[in-house]
Amino acid sequence: MSILTIGTMAFDSIRTPFGSVERVIGGACTYISWAASYWYNDIKLVSIVGEDFPEDEVRALQQRGVDMEGLVRVAGKQSFYWAGSYHADMNNRDTLVTELNVLADFNPVLPEAARNSAFIMLGNLTPNIQLSVLNQLSSKPKLIVLDTMNFWMDNAMDTLKQVIARVDVLTINDEEARQLSGEHSLVRAAEAIHKMGPAYLVIKKGEHGALLFHNGQIFFAPGLPVPDVVDPTGAGDSFAGGMIGYLARTGDVSFSNMKTAIIYGSTMASFCVEEFSLNKLRYLTQEELHERLRQFEQLSTFDVRELSVVNKA
Amino acid sequence: MSILTIGTMAFDSIRTPFGSVERVIGGACTYISWAASYWYNDIKLVSIVGEDFPEDEVRALQQRGVDMEGLVRVAGKQSFYWAGSYHADMNNRDTLVTELNVLADFNPVLPEAARNSAFIMLGNLTPNIQLSVLNQLSSKPKLIVLDTMNFWMDNAMDTLKQVIARVDVLTINDEEARQLSGEHSLVRAAEAIHKMGPAYLVIKKGEHGALLFHNGQIFFAPGLPVPDVVDPTGAGDSFAGGMIGYLARTGDVSFSNMKTAIIYGSTMASFCVEEFSLNKLRYLTQEELHERLRQFEQLSTFDVRELSVVNKA
Repeated sequence: MSILTIGTMAFDSIRTPFGSVERVIGGACTYISWAASYWYNDIKLVSIVGEDFPEDEVRALQQRGVDMEGLVRVAGKQSFYWAGSYHADMNNRDTLVTELNVLADFNPVLPEAARNSAFIMLGNLTPNIQLSVLNQLSSKPKLIVLDTMNFWMDNAMDTLKQVIARVDVLTINDEEARQLSGEHSLVRAAEAIHKMGPAYLVIKKGEHGALLFHNGQIFFAPGLPVPDVVDPTGAGDSFAGGMIGYLARTGDVSFSNMKTAIIYGSTMASFCVEEFSLNKLRYLTQEELHERLRQFEQLSTFDVRELSVVNKA
Repeated sequence: MSILTIGTMAFDSIRTPFGSVERVIGGACTYISWAASYWYNDIKLVSIVGEDFPEDEVRALQQRGVDMEGLVRVAGKQSFYWAGSYHADMNNRDTLVTELNVLADFNPVLPEAARNSAFIMLGNLTPNIQLSVLNQLSSKPKLIVLDTMNFWMDNAMDTLKQVIARVDVLTINDEEARQLSGEHSLVRAAEAIHKMGPAYLVIKKGEHGALLFHNGQIFFAPGLPVPDVVDPTGAGDSFAGGMIGYLARTGDVSFSNMKTAIIYGSTMASFCVEEFSLNKLRYLTQEELHERLRQFEQLSTFDVRELSVVNKA
């Protein structure tokens, strides 16, 4: 049962209140694949890069069992490039530069072997491409996860809604959930979004954690307070990668297991933000990962004691 | 072992995107006492009102076992009055009117019976008054909880720090924790605030829940997503009341029991916001309360599965 992951591979230049880096490796598909590769070893990547993208980076993913047959390298062109600057609170950022480069012509053709993948991870991309990927699948997947953002709601809502109608899990942030549903209350937003298609809605709230909505049930995954957030870039993609890696590994897409998957996602995101680029995600040991899973457990666990009421209404 | 609770009793006029009310019952001490009274019946209140404050409200609290000996009623004067308007996101608000009225002359003298209280809840007030209350105690309490806000950090930081040095639990929001500590990271803010005195720091994050810091340990209490937040006024005070009511009832101020206390606080706050004023907090049944505690448990509980890593770094 393969994971198919599609999205950008890119160069990022990032400025935060705590430092800056120029043209480091980034991209949704890169973060998703690295995060998932700790938990699953049958991952098929579909992306596009220019001649400037380091061959070492491609080999590093191959060595982690990621099938790169679906990676297109375009001679004479440059890779997607994004530059951004984070505000003091690290929750908001300004985009300084977006150079689409090869991404402008991205029209992915899935390798034959990828068409019957069981777990589909649609990284944030133009909804047209996401739709094209779904149309190339040869069998019904076990789970389709869609990541998107407000930009596509502003500029391609009709197509985006066609994609949303066909996925099982939608991951967006709280403001995007409100925009998509027209509801301020997240409970009502979730009801509205379930009706659009996805049985699961994951609302990512950055340092405040993540909410999982399913059929009237809610799970709240905490954000792990880390001493220093160095760079939030890629946190959402690392979250998605950890989640789908865990789900593919366990083969169980029940609500109960989805909750644990969200914790795996939160775990990968908590490491991602501790360094620029993939610097932390490249070098995680099993001990570190298990220790952090236990931290999430400690963070969330309490004794329930139902006391009798002393004054009734 | 009494709870001593000190703070305002007031009239509020509140405007939200979903409605407005004029001169309804409010005040920190009112919310704290109502919330605590479900779990504990030895509560001593210290506050001040004018001749306009309804005698019915005083009697209602008395009937719930709240000792009102410490309530001063000033003839010929009006009660504290606050009017505010909430923004569309319900997380921010503008103060429209603040009339101190009787509060300007509040110089509380603790009734003899209140001076050896075991649990002290200092509601948000000028730090001078909070300090005066601590100086009137005749024996060392089991636990002192302090609620305060950025206004006092801006205008009375020196006195506030003297109060903070003498309390066990400080409850503030995330921006206030950053302002007080000068640290952006909440983990580092907590370390700095522990050094100022409080062994426990509770960071209230509204709809995003609450964080409890203690001696390098962290607990994250989720915010319960409710379908409709009608009025956030008093949520923080209801939280404090639920927390201290539970702690006094169980008599256990360990970290482990403090976590459950935070859930009790979150439970009371989640009811508070569902109606204007005390409209919801007045009429809770044991069944509703226990059902909501179970909702918090479901919201937080997941299965921990530690999988072996398939690709090591």
